Amino acid sequence: MTPRRQSGRAPVTSPAAATVFTTVLTQGPVSRVDVARRTGLSSAAVTKASRPLIEAGYLVELDSEQGGVGRPASPLDLRTDREFFLGVKITDRELIGVVTDLRSQILVTKFHQLPSRKVDAVVDGVSEMVTDLLAESKAYKQRTHCVGVTVAGDVDRDEGFVRYSPFLHWRDVPLAELLAEKIDLEITVDNDVKAITVAERWFGNGVGADSFALVTLGTGIGCGLVVNGGVVTGSHGVAGEIGHIPVFGDGPLCHCGATGCVEAIASTDAIVAAARMTTGEPALTMEEVVTGARLGDVALRRVFARAGVAIGRGLASMANLVGPERIIVSGEGLDAYDLFADEIRDTFATQAFGAAAHCELILRPLPFEEWARGAAAIAAVRTLVIS
Amino acid sequence: MTPRRQSGRAPVTSPAAATVFTTVLTQGPVSRVDVARRTGLSSAAVTKASRPLIEAGYLVELDSEQGGVGRPASPLDLRTDREFFLGVKITDRELIGVVTDLRSQILVTKFHQLPSRKVDAVVDGVSEMVTDLLAESKAYKQRTHCVGVTVAGDVDRDEGFVRYSPFLHWRDVPLAELLAEKIDLEITVDNDVKAITVAERWFGNGVGADSFALVTLGTGIGCGLVVNGGVVTGSHGVAGEIGHIPVFGDGPLCHCGATGCVEAIASTDAIVAAARMTTGEPALTMEEVVTGARLGDVALRRVFARAGVAIGRGLASMANLVGPERIIVSGEGLDAYDLFADEIRDTFATQAFGAAAHCELILRPLPFEEWARGAAAIAAVRTLVIS
Ligand SMILES: [Zn+2]
Ligand SMILES: [Zn+2]
Repeated sequence: MTPRRQSGRAPVTSPAAATVFTTVLTQGPVSRVDVARRTGLSSAAVTKASRPLIEAGYLVELDSEQGGVGRPASPLDLRTDREFFLGVKITDRELIGVVTDLRSQILVTKFHQLPSRKVDAVVDGVSEMVTDLLAESKAYKQRTHCVGVTVAGDVDRDEGFVRYSPFLHWRDVPLAELLAEKIDLEITVDNDVKAITVAERWFGNGVGADSFALVTLGTGIGCGLVVNGGVVTGSHGVAGEIGHIPVFGDGPLCHCGATGCVEAIASTDAIVAAARMTTGEPALTMEEVVTGARLGDVALRRVFARAGVAIGRGLASMANLVGPERIIVSGEGLDAYDLFADEIRDTFATQAFGAAAHCELILRPLPFEEWARGAAAIAAVRTLVIS
Repeated sequence: MTPRRQSGRAPVTSPAAATVFTTVLTQGPVSRVDVARRTGLSSAAVTKASRPLIEAGYLVELDSEQGGVGRPASPLDLRTDREFFLGVKITDRELIGVVTDLRSQILVTKFHQLPSRKVDAVVDGVSEMVTDLLAESKAYKQRTHCVGVTVAGDVDRDEGFVRYSPFLHWRDVPLAELLAEKIDLEITVDNDVKAITVAERWFGNGVGADSFALVTLGTGIGCGLVVNGGVVTGSHGVAGEIGHIPVFGDGPLCHCGATGCVEAIASTDAIVAAARMTTGEPALTMEEVVTGARLGDVALRRVFARAGVAIGRGLASMANLVGPERIIVSGEGLDAYDLFADEIRDTFATQAFGAAAHCELILRPLPFEEWARGAAAIAAVRTLVIS
């Protein structure tokens, strides 16, 4: 697809090397003996697989009390500054860019305004962001090979193709291909919420979890899912579209063409539209709607209550179908969470089937740079874990 | 939990042995060389792992043109009659029992009427079914160690505990424990639809599929899901409850306590209830409803159309959330499929998000004995694959 710069890449070239590398990545420092025990590989296989990773500078041997360098008990750890990754999240108004290290820790964050949502302008903007991020350090320039770019909407990751992004008003944009003309790095493009889920799975609280879901509330209502230990990508490239579960019967028409979708009732736009309708004030903003509801306006509170019911039904649908251990609820919509928290929890409790009600709902704000970190994480995971 | 009879069991005692065994089980006959190639194990590891399986009579070496017995190229195959499994599916009116071989091929099928749905009567009935099945052959008696028992509803498989089975009117029944008092075999209890999904995953068309769903229409609306190559069991023991996705807004109350569930509109009972309501004939049967609708009764056709919309929304919810490769639709509700096929397909097409609409819907009738085969399959998989 996109041009690959092979020089200086992590030598993750066999299944055993990938297993050893990801074990140290997620659990290091860890001794060769423990890597063998945790993975089922033989000690000889661990030693053989770790050698090229040590030689290339990705893994480092720590001296240990029991062992000393080179002994099976001496711990292996990651040299986190051996390679850097860039992440760029595209929103409708700005680009958020980060540089991360091998463990997805953010080293630099930058915000660039977007002059327009047009494809050309966004491609130029991402290219400038990449140049700007790399200019921060000579080390970044030398040891960065991959950039991840994320966008809300329906994205074919394998092709780096944005099929539909409602908030950018994009349809069928070959984003990876267009970016590759301007950027001399390996490019990965994915849905923004899926990317954050990947970051959570590999570098966050999701390490070791068999299943969880991350749901974002806001302009869109998205969801990333981990089931059977792996991120769900969907056989046809679509998964986690909790915003388009039809929970409101013959309810309002959704921008996706369907009716009664969660997003058609509970997205920021849908809430504002309903508030304008019910008050007859066509210029109301989300801030005013939130303020009015907090001050006790009954009609506005009802708008939020209805949104809470839609979200609760969406969460219950997911719990009933997939049964995740826990659901993390996040996104900018969390700012108004107090206005529909009761309806979300009550509806979830009523609609969850049997023991599915035991699924934990966790609220967690995601700072803006976390979105860009997700973009960097998909580049890292693609390179280090599944290359 | 349940007493285990260890004698004569398949020596699947290491991860490598399980890998070799399941490879031959699903892909055999296959040479050691090919097993090594397909699994990533070394040839030495394959030889070492297969030896005890051959000695115990589970695997057999075929002579080959290229090799001769004992050579890496000589194929390994399963001795399918080395162990037998029993499967018993409990319905509200009868028990269906089968004996299967190691590849889940049905050797004997029996139907026993149930005098009552009471727990004691059912436990006695299953025990008699087991005796009856084993009496068919001396070989079954000697080489059967495990029985699988399935029931519709919410089942905790690990505990063999039926939390809720609406059609049997059961709540909190420790079924495995009660059966263990009467039956001297290892007992596995699971949800009936999940069991059929396991059979499909390991012994059917699902072998090698990364994801699929099996949805059954009828008295209940159930679903088994395979995602990331594994059956989804749900962190809290609930998954695949497509019948309880709330797709009809504030619609009818469901027996589960929620509102607007697919099952509250599209189960056989819900269809009959709606038909009785709309016609004012309180004694209508499902057969009469189907006949009337086929003869063109507008009110009855509308009942089916509404059910089709509910099912279509449920299928689209699953496609949008999980993105399975294909959805197999089955169950006794298929008998009336012509009456809501258009609504199911149209609703699915409208409500599926983007490329999720490419998910294939496949109709497949499941003969009654297939349900019991599923029960036998969960016993086999528990013993042979994940023991
Ligand atoms: Zn929609
Ligand atoms: Zn229900």
